[in-house]
Amino acid sequence: MEIRSLYFDGSILHILDQRYLPFEVIDVECRSASDVWEAINKMKIRGAPAIGVAAAYGMYLGLRDFEGTKEEFIKKATELKSYLDSARPTAVNLAWATKRILDRILLNKEKSVEELKEIVLEEAKNIEKEDVERNFKIGEYGSELFSDNDTIMTICNTGELATVKHGTAFSVIKRAFEKYKNISVIALETRPYLQGARLTAFELKEAGIPFKLITDNMAAFIMQKGLVTGIITGADRIASNGDTANKVGTYMLAVLAHFHKIPFYVA
Amino acid sequence: MEIRSLYFDGSILHILDQRYLPFEVIDVECRSASDVWEAINKMKIRGAPAIGVAAAYGMYLGLRDFEGTKEEFIKKATELKSYLDSARPTAVNLAWATKRILDRILLNKEKSVEELKEIVLEEAKNIEKEDVERNFKIGEYGSELFSDNDTIMTICNTGELATVKHGTAFSVIKRAFEKYKNISVIALETRPYLQGARLTAFELKEAGIPFKLITDNMAAFIMQKGLVTGIITGADRIASNGDTANKVGTYMLAVLAHFHKIPFYVA
Repeated sequence: MEIRSLYFDGSILHILDQRYLPFEVIDVECRSASDVWEAINKMKIRGAPAIGVAAAYGMYLGLRDFEGTKEEFIKKATELKSYLDSARPTAVNLAWATKRILDRILLNKEKSVEELKEIVLEEAKNIEKEDVERNFKIGEYGSELFSDNDTIMTICNTGELATVKHGTAFSVIKRAFEKYKNISVIALETRPYLQGARLTAFELKEAGIPFKLITDNMAAFIMQKGLVTGIITGADRIASNGDTANKVGTYMLAVLAHFHKIPFYVA
Repeated sequence: MEIRSLYFDGSILHILDQRYLPFEVIDVECRSASDVWEAINKMKIRGAPAIGVAAAYGMYLGLRDFEGTKEEFIKKATELKSYLDSARPTAVNLAWATKRILDRILLNKEKSVEELKEIVLEEAKNIEKEDVERNFKIGEYGSELFSDNDTIMTICNTGELATVKHGTAFSVIKRAFEKYKNISVIALETRPYLQGARLTAFELKEAGIPFKLITDNMAAFIMQKGLVTGIITGADRIASNGDTANKVGTYMLAVLAHFHKIPFYVA
C-alpha cells in the first residue's frame, strides 16, 4: 500500500486522517478552506511540510469559486491567509506556505481574477513538488551517514505521513535501508501523542524495514547496551545557525547520545 | 483519606487494588495463600516492600488452617514458599520474606504446630513493622538532603502504596515537605505502566504536596530550564557496593542529572 498523507485530485484535497492510524485508514475529503482548517486544527494532518502543502491547497479551495473584483479577490486572499494560519499558530510551514501563495498573487496583480486562481493552484503544486524533491535529496545525502548493519534510533514521525512523500529523517532511514539492506530501526513511542508508536511504526512496517518500538524512557538503557549506532530525528524548524526545534524528547536524546558517544543527526 | 496498600485485620489480608487507582479504591480481601498469589501476580499490589509483607501474610494464610503432623507442616510451608515465590520470580523481597518465615519455622521446629502458626504470624507482623520503621528513617535521614524551595523530580511510585507506610523515596519527599514547607515535586508518568501518573500523582495529591506530572521524555528539557534542584528515585534492589536496579527510565534520569549537574539520590 502506498501511503499518501495528502493529494489533490483536481477538485478535492484528500487527507489521510492520521488520528486513526494504524488501526483505520480514513480519507478526509476537503472541498473548502474551512475543511482544510479543520483538518489542520484537529490534527487529522500533521508534520510541518504536510501542513504547509495542505494550507497552500486550502488557499486555492478558498479562492477558486470566488466571484467579484480583483480588489475583493486580494482582500479575500489576505483574510484567507490569516484564517488558515489560525488553525495552528505554531506551525511555521503553515504561515510560510500561505504567505508564498499571497505573495504570488500580489506579484501578479495586473492579471485577471481567473488568471490569479490558476497562479494560486500552480503555486500550491510547486510547493508540493518542491517538498517531494527536497525530501528525496535529504534521503539521498543523509543515507551517506549510515552503513550496513547500523541500528538507527528515531523519535516522533518524520515519514511520508509528515510530508508529501519520502519524509525527512525517515527518508534518510528508508534510503539507507535500500542501499545497505541490513539497517534496522529503534523507534521511540514519543509521548504524549505517540506519533512514533502510531505512525512511524506503521510506516516502517509498510516499508518492510525491521524495527523495534520502545518507550521513550528506554532510550538511555538501549544506548548504554551498545544497541544503537546512530540517531536521526526531524525538526519542526532549523535556524540558519544550526539550532533546531523539535518535539519534546529530542533534547533528551541529544544529551543521551552525547553521553554515550553516539552520532546524532537532525534532518 | 489514609492510603493503606495492605493491612491484616486478624483474619483477612486487605489489599488496595492499585490497578484501578486513581479512579477507584477497591479493597481486595485475601483469605488464602492463593488469593495473595493472585494479588501479587496480577499486579493488584506492587512495590518491593509491599510485596514482601503481602507474601509473609500469605504464608500465614496458607498455614493457619493446617491440620497434620509437624513434618507435614514443614513440608507444606516449604511448598508454600515456592508457590508464593512463583507469583513474581523477579521480586527479590518476595523470596526474602517467605524465606524469613520458613527460616523461623525451621529454627523453632521443636515447637508444636499450633505454636509454629503463632510464630509465623508474629514474623509476618515483624516484617511489616520493620518496613514501617525503616521507611520512616529513610524519610528522616533523606530529608536532610533537601531544603526550602527545592523542586524534587521522581520517577515511578515509591510511596505508601509501594510499602506498608511512608514509602521510600516518597518518604523523603514527604518529610522534606513537612520540614521545609516550600517543597514541590515533578513526577514522571513512568511508561510503560504509568505508576507515576496513576499512583505517585495520586499520593502527592492526597498528601497535599504541590506537584506537576510530566511525560518521561520531558525530564531533560525541565532540567535544562533549571526547574529541578534534586532528583530522588526508589530502587528495586541496592547492592552492597551501591549499585542499584530500578525501573527502566531511572538510568536515563541519572545520565541527564549528571549532564545537568543536578544531585541524584536513590532511596
